[in-house]
Amino acid sequence: MNIKNVLIVGDYESYFKKYLKALKHYNLSFKLIDEITNKDLKWADAYVGFEPSQLLQPSDVNWIHTFNAGVNNYLSLEGWGKSNTLLTRTISDFGQKMSEYCLSYILADLQNHKQLQAQQEEKVWNQQAPQALRDQTVTIFGTGQTGQRIAKIFSTLGMTVYGISNSGSTKPYFQKVEKLEESKGLIQPSNYIISTLPFTDKTEKLFNQSLFNSLNQAYFINVGRGQVVDLEALKRALDNDNIRHAVLDVFEPEPLPTTSDLWNRKDVTITPHISALTDIDEAITCFYQTLKGIENNEQLQNQVDFENGY
Amino acid sequence: MNIKNVLIVGDYESYFKKYLKALKHYNLSFKLIDEITNKDLKWADAYVGFEPSQLLQPSDVNWIHTFNAGVNNYLSLEGWGKSNTLLTRTISDFGQKMSEYCLSYILADLQNHKQLQAQQEEKVWNQQAPQALRDQTVTIFGTGQTGQRIAKIFSTLGMTVYGISNSGSTKPYFQKVEKLEESKGLIQPSNYIISTLPFTDKTEKLFNQSLFNSLNQAYFINVGRGQVVDLEALKRALDNDNIRHAVLDVFEPEPLPTTSDLWNRKDVTITPHISALTDIDEAITCFYQTLKGIENNEQLQNQVDFENGY
Repeated sequence: MNIKNVLIVGDYESYFKKYLKALKHYNLSFKLIDEITNKDLKWADAYVGFEPSQLLQPSDVNWIHTFNAGVNNYLSLEGWGKSNTLLTRTISDFGQKMSEYCLSYILADLQNHKQLQAQQEEKVWNQQAPQALRDQTVTIFGTGQTGQRIAKIFSTLGMTVYGISNSGSTKPYFQKVEKLEESKGLIQPSNYIISTLPFTDKTEKLFNQSLFNSLNQAYFINVGRGQVVDLEALKRALDNDNIRHAVLDVFEPEPLPTTSDLWNRKDVTITPHISALTDIDEAITCFYQTLKGIENNEQLQNQVDFENGY
Repeated sequence: MNIKNVLIVGDYESYFKKYLKALKHYNLSFKLIDEITNKDLKWADAYVGFEPSQLLQPSDVNWIHTFNAGVNNYLSLEGWGKSNTLLTRTISDFGQKMSEYCLSYILADLQNHKQLQAQQEEKVWNQQAPQALRDQTVTIFGTGQTGQRIAKIFSTLGMTVYGISNSGSTKPYFQKVEKLEESKGLIQPSNYIISTLPFTDKTEKLFNQSLFNSLNQAYFINVGRGQVVDLEALKRALDNDNIRHAVLDVFEPEPLPTTSDLWNRKDVTITPHISALTDIDEAITCFYQTLKGIENNEQLQNQVDFENGY
């Protein structure tokens, strides 16, 4: 693939400094998104950034690389069908980040942080034993790179880890993996349910009333995409105690509107899409590695499969 | 050692059920602590329980086993010098429990749980990137079984782990171990300081003003014993930002009196000695394994060394 001129969206010139020598055979152009013209897109072989310019069409360039893990904003561009443009995404360390995010809430739950905080306010000394990680079962929706990383860390810590995927194929670090249709046996006894699912045609509102009904006081964490959860069904599931607490990091739209009644619920924790925030240094490292991969005609780990949508 | 008659303090007969067959060659007597008489102590070869009876003297029995990890209450009995009585303690799974306790607070800190909770109350969507475990340095005071277990889990998760001990000897899972006198280089750059130290002559108020002065906005966690911390020095260290937050699970006395001004501090988290709460099932398993070890003349892992005091 011919890549010579790289259009980089955003004021990131200083962040690229350490790669400038390695990239000396490329022409780099840094532009703010609103300043990008059709001439820039005609010049560019590659388009790199968090967001597509309103003028961007897939056929304008040979390669589009996003600094995000999710690609919905790029997939919603018109004209992918009639182009051969390569789309790649940032996969750096999201699994590790999401693991630490999820683990922080699971441990805060097992260690009764909220109850202990309330006790301290009342100066109450009341011993209640924390629960151990090794006695917990967690089911992770999505057994890709991210899900596997979470599964690895959680199983290392002694938790029982199940997975749900399209194929139901065995994956490392998961004790069992099932297809959604056959998942009841796994999710019913699960203490924790984690969604790492991307937003695709298949996953839209996958967490619906029927799925929630099969849960039993589960603690639900969504670090994938907001669109995979039917929020009305989630609220009913919380009211019915199918779910005893929900930690939500992703929403549609974002930011979550202040009018949402989720903000006020004591049984919902809202965080502002931070579980796998892209560190720009990491994103640039991933861009650089992807570019080297293209140069060397390697199989790219982070190429988006248009059929799967991720 | 001759062990035939075992006096077990507390109403634990039902918990011993699963061991009754294995213990059929022993005479077990279950008594509440206030009901124990000199006759019982004369009869007993072994004394087993959380607390010593007021009548107990070390020379009354051949073996004393505590259901706790700490042994201060037994060590403060008169008459150890003129007895050959064996003292053993419960060591079951304390390291794992303390690891999960410490990790829960470290992750809640790195993931900004408190700030995010405040933001949710205000319906504010403000992204701030969590910090990664792999960028953190933790120094653990105490490199025994408990400290090593914590070090193992933390280093597996990517943290840099240093240790402080009497000997300064290298130990598995610690990147470096130093004696306290030579510890400045380790503790100064540490983000987290954890004390697992027992209370001995050497550790009393070991965390004093001079030690705190060498810290730099460290997050301090005490899961060892309350007596090792000079609380007045701790409060000054918090005021001076040598310590930015303290998580205290152990105090002297316990419960922490409601008159203590620690309860009201926002920069102090108080928990009621729960980081390694003895599960009675685990404690009984440890008693049983120790008894088997005595029977088979094995080296006991949990024998208290009177010189060290643990």
